[in-house]
Amino acid sequence: MSVLPKSVENVINEFSKLPGVGPKSASRMTYHYLRSPNKDATKLGQALVEMDEKTKFCSSCFNVTDEDICNICSSPLRDHSTLCIVEEPLDVVAFENSGIYNGLYFVLGGVISPAEGITASELRFKELEERVKSVINESEKGLELIVATNPSLEGEATAAYIQDIFNIFVKEGKIHISRLAMGLPTGADLEYADRLTLKRALEGRRDI
Amino acid sequence: MSVLPKSVENVINEFSKLPGVGPKSASRMTYHYLRSPNKDATKLGQALVEMDEKTKFCSSCFNVTDEDICNICSSPLRDHSTLCIVEEPLDVVAFENSGIYNGLYFVLGGVISPAEGITASELRFKELEERVKSVINESEKGLELIVATNPSLEGEATAAYIQDIFNIFVKEGKIHISRLAMGLPTGADLEYADRLTLKRALEGRRDI
Repeated sequence: MSVLPKSVENVINEFSKLPGVGPKSASRMTYHYLRSPNKDATKLGQALVEMDEKTKFCSSCFNVTDEDICNICSSPLRDHSTLCIVEEPLDVVAFENSGIYNGLYFVLGGVISPAEGITASELRFKELEERVKSVINESEKGLELIVATNPSLEGEATAAYIQDIFNIFVKEGKIHISRLAMGLPTGADLEYADRLTLKRALEGRRDI
Repeated sequence: MSVLPKSVENVINEFSKLPGVGPKSASRMTYHYLRSPNKDATKLGQALVEMDEKTKFCSSCFNVTDEDICNICSSPLRDHSTLCIVEEPLDVVAFENSGIYNGLYFVLGGVISPAEGITASELRFKELEERVKSVINESEKGLELIVATNPSLEGEATAAYIQDIFNIFVKEGKIHISRLAMGLPTGADLEYADRLTLKRALEGRRDI
């Protein structure tokens, strides 16, 4: 016989599935709602159900949106001849919050990771090829692809794979591919920088 | 124009209301659900709504339950002549998980805290009095009240208040009131024990 009603146990179970949330934290979160007098659990509950119902992937860039085409892809104010390839929707949020980029995006849905059993076929490479081809056909300016996968082993491998796929278009002069610069982050301390970051910073040094 | 759909913003907002969850963690939790393919957001959402719908307070001890009388109060195997007075439903969980107590409980719903503006009238003292009186009338054995509010300033004040209310019954020999022992917790290091804990441990010393 459990001390807690089944409905309370269910909530603790679901909270425990969140990354970084153990059974103790999950219980604490659940108890918070048991104490709250304003039906806050229902508010969060309905918000979650609504999110699942309303959000979908933009059919053009696969970012999270509640419309068929997201408001970045449909904006005439954005530069449609630049495509920034990112892993996840939250990478788009990072770029957008910084306000430094005015092109479009393409969300791959992850990176190639043999260790986690994620192969190229599970990511949106087919959709990316179609997208690139359609832009090349429409645009006279050509297309710039900015590969913005994370600076991890998997991110690098995925970047190399992207380069491979589009190599033929690069040779034909139809697209230009670049990769985000790697080096020391602002505010970093040389003393604590890891070997690879230091190596990349050295390799990528620029004249002043 | 926000980058994220409204339905996603709503979930982040609701998660941010949890104690100890800042906007960054709230976003991370929300993104987890955006990435999850199995409608996990809906599962948590429905569990939360169901919890709010189904749970109520036991009409006898005010613990959280999904029945009118919780299964502790209704159990014939428990000692109905002992009442452990706790602040919150999770205190009941702590006792039950330890398996060391076989009496009943009474959940006050908090402690008297002038700093937070919580007066005695906001807690379940009236319900506690009624409960105590009804047990005294029914039981021949008398009643033992164990005051298990937290060992904080507010918990102590609340314990003193409880003693005050029932003083008359104590004098009549109808009830017996005790308070949880205070002292060093198991595994504690004397060196790091705070002054008050040490004082209480000394005052409460027992012959060996």
